[in-house]
Parts: sequence; structure tokens; C-alpha cells
Amino acid sequence: MTQSTQIRLVRRPVGEPTDADLEVATEELPALEEGQVSLRTVFLSLDPYMRGRMSDAESYAAPVELGAVMVGATVSEVVESRSDRRRPGDLVLAYTGWQTHAVVDARATRRLDPATAPVSTALGVLGMPGFTAYAGLLEIGRPQPGETVVVAAATGPVGSAVGQIAKVKGARAVGIAGGPEKTRALIEDFGFDAALDHRSPTFVDDLAAATPDGIDVYFENVGGPVAKAVTRRLNTYARMPVCGLVANYNAPSAPEGPDRLPGFMSLVLTRSLTVRGFIQDEFVPTHHDAFVEEMGEWVRTGAVRYREDVVQGLENAPEAFRGLLAGRNFGKLLVQVGELPA
Amino acid sequence: MTQSTQIRLVRRPVGEPTDADLEVATEELPALEEGQVSLRTVFLSLDPYMRGRMSDAESYAAPVELGAVMVGATVSEVVESRSDRRRPGDLVLAYTGWQTHAVVDARATRRLDPATAPVSTALGVLGMPGFTAYAGLLEIGRPQPGETVVVAAATGPVGSAVGQIAKVKGARAVGIAGGPEKTRALIEDFGFDAALDHRSPTFVDDLAAATPDGIDVYFENVGGPVAKAVTRRLNTYARMPVCGLVANYNAPSAPEGPDRLPGFMSLVLTRSLTVRGFIQDEFVPTHHDAFVEEMGEWVRTGAVRYREDVVQGLENAPEAFRGLLAGRNFGKLLVQVGELPA
Repeated sequence: MTQSTQIRLVRRPVGEPTDADLEVATEELPALEEGQVSLRTVFLSLDPYMRGRMSDAESYAAPVELGAVMVGATVSEVVESRSDRRRPGDLVLAYTGWQTHAVVDARATRRLDPATAPVSTALGVLGMPGFTAYAGLLEIGRPQPGETVVVAAATGPVGSAVGQIAKVKGARAVGIAGGPEKTRALIEDFGFDAALDHRSPTFVDDLAAATPDGIDVYFENVGGPVAKAVTRRLNTYARMPVCGLVANYNAPSAPEGPDRLPGFMSLVLTRSLTVRGFIQDEFVPTHHDAFVEEMGEWVRTGAVRYREDVVQGLENAPEAFRGLLAGRNFGKLLVQVGELPA
Repeated sequence: MTQSTQIRLVRRPVGEPTDADLEVATEELPALEEGQVSLRTVFLSLDPYMRGRMSDAESYAAPVELGAVMVGATVSEVVESRSDRRRPGDLVLAYTGWQTHAVVDARATRRLDPATAPVSTALGVLGMPGFTAYAGLLEIGRPQPGETVVVAAATGPVGSAVGQIAKVKGARAVGIAGGPEKTRALIEDFGFDAALDHRSPTFVDDLAAATPDGIDVYFENVGGPVAKAVTRRLNTYARMPVCGLVANYNAPSAPEGPDRLPGFMSLVLTRSLTVRGFIQDEFVPTHHDAFVEEMGEWVRTGAVRYREDVVQGLENAPEAFRGLLAGRNFGKLLVQVGELPA
């Protein structure tokens, strides 16, 4: 019998998730029923939304139950199949979470073609993060030629795609990241027009210098002090797709004052801003086909590039996840749980 | 020569505008030049946006200069004309501010037909406040049949129109106002489905009881504690047109904490909210013709009713304006500066 090594949530974290909030355990896989496949995890995707699933605070999705395996998207190899849909050796996109093996319904997997693109991209630029960037920027942000688009966490899978899609659409892309290595990558690897280090003591002035015509689209995925500085430079009729607020995710309660909400709402009013929260699922029916076609093409032609940060071994997932929330990853964060088939 | 009695802004108010911030003065009208008309003010409109013009804080419009006449829309009678466009005795919509007489270019006036509707409605239900309600609700709020629309300051000219237009569109209208007399009027005069008194100690529970299916559209024109209670009940994909924040207008700086902005942004994210500030001017090119036609019809048929609160005498404008910011008016606030022509 195959055993799955799992990382389970055993306590709801207060602030940063600690090792005591998570437990490593093993579980024997059940025998396959008709229609099921058994999977071996190759890559596990780590994404900021997972912090929300660790909490029982209200969110758009139910929290992970205590004692259950942490959720997450994976690229896995089919080991055994009792379904016509999948054959052993197939590589699939699945949602089997932080574990080495799993048994799932074959219909809960999507087959990946390694000839089209590296399979890991199904977790990044051609997967949920890339689609988040694509749908949020094009449907809510609607960048026009010559407009200025700003995005933070800009070397991450969402931010880097936002900036590059903005460029494809003729807009000016300004990226914000932490540290000189990342800002250099924004210019040299991802082709941003300007790159800012949010850790710099002159960040607010740097932002002003990099956005002389103000900001038309702020793709919000971080919150915190970066958002504060950016919102002040938003132009009339600026759009602000809100897909994440990483800076807040570990915050246990409302921070100290002053209360900035009235000032923010005044800005919304006086500058006729559009602030729109979204979860990418909303746009799947209307935009996913176009995404597969357009983004696939942009990746093939090099108009959109991507970067991966691969951590070896499931046991290192918790520390890698803490690094993600603190911005220590550099590119799409993946955990290599098992080897790719030869 | 004709003299105009004027109320001028002589000091920028801190908090509530006081009599020392405003000065009564007289000025001799200049002789008419070609194309100009001289006007005698009949009604002066008092509106919350005027508080913003008294400040030099950033806003969507330039502040009134110190020493200048306070701005405002008026219904005026043409006394003398050197333009083919207007004749003495014409009643016009103008923007001559807090004064008894003025000389302006005839093209800066719009002739009103007293046979179509009482001329005072050009300052209320068929004027800027009515258009604010119409465009903001229909273009941003987009109420669907069966949805729940909530609006505060609901006996005011914007709020009462929002609720009644929501009803025309098949939505459920919940109005919030201050005191039992106003909440009674919401039900009996304006046909709201539910009316809540924000001064009631049970307001938060009352709101929950009145919105059992949550809230789909919150037309934001007040801010403050009412907004806080309402936003918590917003449904996924709810829309929030933001046209005013009266509760904040007298606040001199950021209030004490806790900082509610991170919590608000989390709500925007987890419930996929649309928050959209607007000034009605934006929608004039696209929506004003339809407004004139539809709203005129709704007022004629009684589908949309209106209420006016008329204060006598220009000298009472400052106190009436303070009352407006504190919610003491009951209906569209007008100052009767002069008599209607017989």
C-alpha cells in the first residue's frame, strides 16, 4: 500500500504560521474506486490565499478544517488509474494539497501537455496566478495606451504578469518589489519601464518620480504602506482591481489609528475612483478561453516571461510559505515534492 | 443702480462653518455688456458639496477664494437682458451663488418652463441632486429586480430619489434617516419598503432585520457609523456608488483609530465589492437626456415624489447650511431669497 506524507493544519495561526500550527503525518491511501486515479505530487504551488484558509475569519472560501491536509494546487503524475480519462504516466493539474500522494476522482484533474509548455507553468503564468493578472487587469483595470499601471510584489507570478500584459496593451508599467536584485529583474527580465524598491527610505519620492503623470491603474495585491503611497497618486477615474492584501494576512486585528478609512473614501469620491475586489473564479466563464489562447501565445513569443522559485522537499513547505508572506521568494514559489518523470 | 447683497467666504472653517467664516456684504452690479443678463435670485439651493468648496483641501473642484461669494445653483428671474436668448421675466437656472442679484452671460443660464414643473424642482428632483441619484444608481448601482438597495439621508433630494428609482426598477428600497418623523415619511410619502432611524440604539439590529437577504447596492452619501453598519451586510458582488460623505465633511483630520481601512479592503476583496466614487458631471454626456425624459415622466406620474424644505431669507442661509450638514433639514433645502414673479 502507498503512504502519503501530509502536512496538516492542527491549530489556527495567530500572525505568522508556526511549525506548531502544522503537523507532518502519514496516511495510507485507500484502494482505488471506479473513476479514480492515484497521484504522486511533483510540484506543489504555494500562494498567498492559503493564509486565509488557515483562519476561520470570514473569507470567500471555507477554512481548512483542523486536522485536515492543507489545500493547494499541484502538478502530479498519475500512478494508477481506474478511469478511461487518465493513464499512468499522465501529468495532471490537481488540487491535492500539501502531500506526496493522493487518490481523487479523475474528473478533478486536468491533463497537461509537456510539449506545449513546461508543466510547472500550469501553477503560475499559465495557471491561476496568470489568470488572476489577466482577468483583473483587462476586465477591471482596463489599461489604455499611454496610461500608467502600477503593481507591487512585481516579481511574483501575478505582479510580473500584470506588468507585462500592461506593456502588451501599450501602457507604462511600474513595478514595486523588495530589494535591488528584484528591482533589477523587473527591468532586465520582465521589461518594466520603472522599478521601485519599497524598502528604500526614499520610496515615496521614487514613486512620484516614476509616475510623473500619476497612476491610472493600481493592481492591488499587497495592501499596507505601499498601497498607501500609491493611492495618493491615483488619477481621476483610476481603477484599482483588488486581488490580494498580503501585508494584512498575518495581522490578527485592526491596527492602531489614526483611522485611514475616511481619508480613503474621500479619495474615492474626489477622484472618481473604481475599487473592485475580485476572485479569479468570477471571470473563468467569460475570460478563461481567451486567456489560454492569448497568454499561451504571449508566453511562446516571449512577450510575457516568468520566473520560478523552486524549493526542494515537502518538509520545507512551511518555511517557504512564511517566506512567501514576507516577500522572501523571488518568482512563482513552488515546492518540488517529487521528481518529474523522465 | 442695483445692489446685490452677498454672503462671502472670509475664512476657511475648521469643523462646522461659523458666522465668523462668512460675511454679509453688498456690491453694486456692473452695467450690462452685450450678451449679459441681470438676475434676481428667487431660490438658492444649499447642498452638502458646498462644505468642500469652503476648504482648500484637495477636492474635485477648486475652493471658493477667500473674499468671494459662496457658490451655488439658483433659480432666478431675468430683470434686464442684453441677449436675444433671454427676456425680462424669464425664470432661469443659474449658478450665481449666495446673493440676491447678479450679472452673468446669458449662455450661463437655462430657461425654465413653469408650466412643466414647479421651477424649484430644477434645483432638486429634476436638477443636480435628482440626476446624481439617477446616474449613480442606474450606472454604478445597477439594481436588479428583487435586490436590496440601501440609502441614507433618505428624505433628502438624492436619497429619496435613489429609493424611488430603485422601486421603479423592481428592487427593494431601505431608507435610513434621523428621527421618527423622517422614517414615517420614507414609508408614507416616498414608498420605501423599510425605514430605519440611525439614531436608534437598536439601529444595527434594525438594519439586519430590514435586510434579511443582505444588501446588493449601498448608495453612499453619508459615511460615518451608518456606512460602517451597512458595509458589513453587503452581499458578494454588491455595488457601492459613492457620491458624498457628509458625516466626514466637518472633520478636520483623520479620526482616532483603530485603522478601519485594512478591514474595509478585506471586505472589498472577500466579497468582490465594487466601490466607485463619482461626481454627476461625469455622466451628463451619456445620461442627462434620458434623465430629463424618464425622471420628468416619473415625477409627473407620481412614481417619484419630492419634498422641499424652504428657509426664508438669504440671511438665514448660513444657519440652514449648518443644519444641512447635521441632518436637520427635511427634504431638499432651499433658501427663498426673493419672491416668485406673480
